[in-house]
Amino acid sequence: MTTAQANQAAFERLTKAEPVLVDIRPAIEVVPGMTRHMVLTSGPPMRWSEYFGGQRDGIIGGALHEGLAGTREEAIAKLDEGEITVNSCHEHDCIGSVAGIYTASMPVFIVEDRQTSTRAFCNFYEGPSRYRLNYGAYSQEVHENLRHIAEVISPVLADAVRLTGGLPLKPLIQRALHMGDELHSRNTAGTILFTRELFPKIVEVARHKLDDVNATLAFIRESDYFFLRLSMATAKATANAAHGIAGSSVVTGMTISCRDFAIRVSGLGDKWFHGPHPTLQGRFFEGFSEHDVEWMGGESHHTEAIGLGAFAQAAAFGLQAYQGGSAEAMVANNLAMYRITVGEHPDFRIPYFGFRGSPVGIDVLKVVETGIVPLIDGGLAGKGGGQIGAGVLMAPIECFKAAAAAHATLGPTTTAAS
Amino acid sequence: MTTAQANQAAFERLTKAEPVLVDIRPAIEVVPGMTRHMVLTSGPPMRWSEYFGGQRDGIIGGALHEGLAGTREEAIAKLDEGEITVNSCHEHDCIGSVAGIYTASMPVFIVEDRQTSTRAFCNFYEGPSRYRLNYGAYSQEVHENLRHIAEVISPVLADAVRLTGGLPLKPLIQRALHMGDELHSRNTAGTILFTRELFPKIVEVARHKLDDVNATLAFIRESDYFFLRLSMATAKATANAAHGIAGSSVVTGMTISCRDFAIRVSGLGDKWFHGPHPTLQGRFFEGFSEHDVEWMGGESHHTEAIGLGAFAQAAAFGLQAYQGGSAEAMVANNLAMYRITVGEHPDFRIPYFGFRGSPVGIDVLKVVETGIVPLIDGGLAGKGGGQIGAGVLMAPIECFKAAAAAHATLGPTTTAAS
Repeated sequence: MTTAQANQAAFERLTKAEPVLVDIRPAIEVVPGMTRHMVLTSGPPMRWSEYFGGQRDGIIGGALHEGLAGTREEAIAKLDEGEITVNSCHEHDCIGSVAGIYTASMPVFIVEDRQTSTRAFCNFYEGPSRYRLNYGAYSQEVHENLRHIAEVISPVLADAVRLTGGLPLKPLIQRALHMGDELHSRNTAGTILFTRELFPKIVEVARHKLDDVNATLAFIRESDYFFLRLSMATAKATANAAHGIAGSSVVTGMTISCRDFAIRVSGLGDKWFHGPHPTLQGRFFEGFSEHDVEWMGGESHHTEAIGLGAFAQAAAFGLQAYQGGSAEAMVANNLAMYRITVGEHPDFRIPYFGFRGSPVGIDVLKVVETGIVPLIDGGLAGKGGGQIGAGVLMAPIECFKAAAAAHATLGPTTTAAS
Repeated sequence: MTTAQANQAAFERLTKAEPVLVDIRPAIEVVPGMTRHMVLTSGPPMRWSEYFGGQRDGIIGGALHEGLAGTREEAIAKLDEGEITVNSCHEHDCIGSVAGIYTASMPVFIVEDRQTSTRAFCNFYEGPSRYRLNYGAYSQEVHENLRHIAEVISPVLADAVRLTGGLPLKPLIQRALHMGDELHSRNTAGTILFTRELFPKIVEVARHKLDDVNATLAFIRESDYFFLRLSMATAKATANAAHGIAGSSVVTGMTISCRDFAIRVSGLGDKWFHGPHPTLQGRFFEGFSEHDVEWMGGESHHTEAIGLGAFAQAAAFGLQAYQGGSAEAMVANNLAMYRITVGEHPDFRIPYFGFRGSPVGIDVLKVVETGIVPLIDGGLAGKGGGQIGAGVLMAPIECFKAAAAAHATLGPTTTAAS
């Protein structure tokens, strides 16, 4: 297979995926290899000793939240001793938002690509508070909010999802793109469409759980980013489905840890290619600036790898209010992404571009050739924890150069006519 | 008061209105002057003998639907004799979509501008069928659908609305503008936001009316235009609130009948100024063309008079799929409307324009001066009844010239510094 053929195969997997929300369960019940003493976090696999700052705080917070330790000191000691283990989300088919902390009792969305039976998992958006465990913040309030999600919100939604027999997500994503979302930093329409889709089932659930249903509706009403975790699980399942195609130079994973940025490539196995943290143009909440940004992880930019987020920025002009920029810049950003991708998505379409399909299938060879790096719509974490703004991130060229170099070492039969 | 001052006063009324959905009731209970033997229709007041074509068919269909006659011939005879009366929607604070047929038993939304206590009424969207009474079509199916709306859908929504104690519509409209709606020909987001807003109350209603609630949810799910009737009632209440300001040259009503197009102006009393039917650029359903268009009424373009519809076209690029055109043309159309309006809406904002307020307060003097006529996003009715497409309509300059001429005859104290 030539590189072009391999990339076409990866493109097909990326665009033909049929993500379906099949259930919501505690991570321990469904995430492969999950244990009661494990915390999952964003980024490529690393040793516990390599984590620092907000991401390390997030891991410690996860251990405390799960009751694996009674104090911060005890948690650190148990992590040092390996009694509490830290793994990457990626190794367990999970996808992390910012620090991406998963523990055993946390409910996860289970999304399956019906084309390939690939499954991926994502935990819940914590709500509109600036202080959230996935932004490295931990307190009694964070803990209680996570318990509320696990004990009240997720059981109601799980009951409703089971009554649907599986909820197809692609139609909701397609529609949300026509309603001002790009499904990474803006999920307003997706959230409302998801709620509406479940509503007849929620009415049924309300017959025996009225108070919990009211709490759930109140929670989702305040959470315009609720659907993000579903687009993330969709992105992870879809990207995983496109991984492992011999000779392909298409990106099937992008991740951030406290240390760096890394990508993996469909035809280049399990290796992660590293680069420095992204540069960014941000819009900051009152009182914060670029100097307050702290990198503490993130994998939600898998959405960009499947043709959403910054790759559909021109579908979401409302994002200006959240992450700054102008409509003109958003159009230019979005158009640039067509130059580094394999093709146009047959189903994810951008109204402003006359319903042109979004650019999809990031080709590391095209990134290196053009010098245009993938753009990412992202939330920004601050020193000491919490969200402090949002912005457009530029992925580092270094990891694409490293991946392209590795790709060049593949045999000539796999690189001809690339 | 100078014209400029009068127009500023009209602008304030148009932009500061606080439309609230206060109830849903049968027209006979709440529409001022409504009787059991009355049919209301779109357009300026006319005699029964002046109606023809689809609009006349719609009036006859309304009489049959209401049980005022058993056959078409009987209905015509009773209309000829005045036993069944025909009035304009406008005379009863109602607003007609296309032919705009209202009869006594039809449920209407009651929208009140909390700033001025002005009330307006709009009946229900009939659902996605191409054949609807308001498009001049009448059959057993149309009849049964209207009964279903009156007996099942509207009581559920009325119960839910009453439980809210009054549902403010402005926040929903503001938000829908950021989600791809312009609230005339695209109401997808408005409909979903409205439904979500009512969810917690619908859950309560479901405890004693589960089947009806499920039917209601199914109906709204298929009706992306459901919210149109709420934006129309909002537009009518808002435009009425801005009517009657001495010296103002701002348009407070635009209407179409089978005969012509007409406007009224805030400072020019009850007079309607007439012109020919609009010219249009349409997109037609399969098998239809411009030659099949029949004018059978319409008043939904009151939405344009309050800064929505074509005056917010650049908020709704998805409209291309419905009414044709290109994103570029939509931007140009929308920008042109700033040249004929008093100001920019402080609350209705267009993301693509960097959240610039939509143009609002159509000034007949500016229309005549620039030669730029108001554009209208509208559905298109076909000969023989039913919807056959949608498009952008250009209002006729003649009615604006006539209104400007009438305005010029006002005393000098009211026209200075216009």
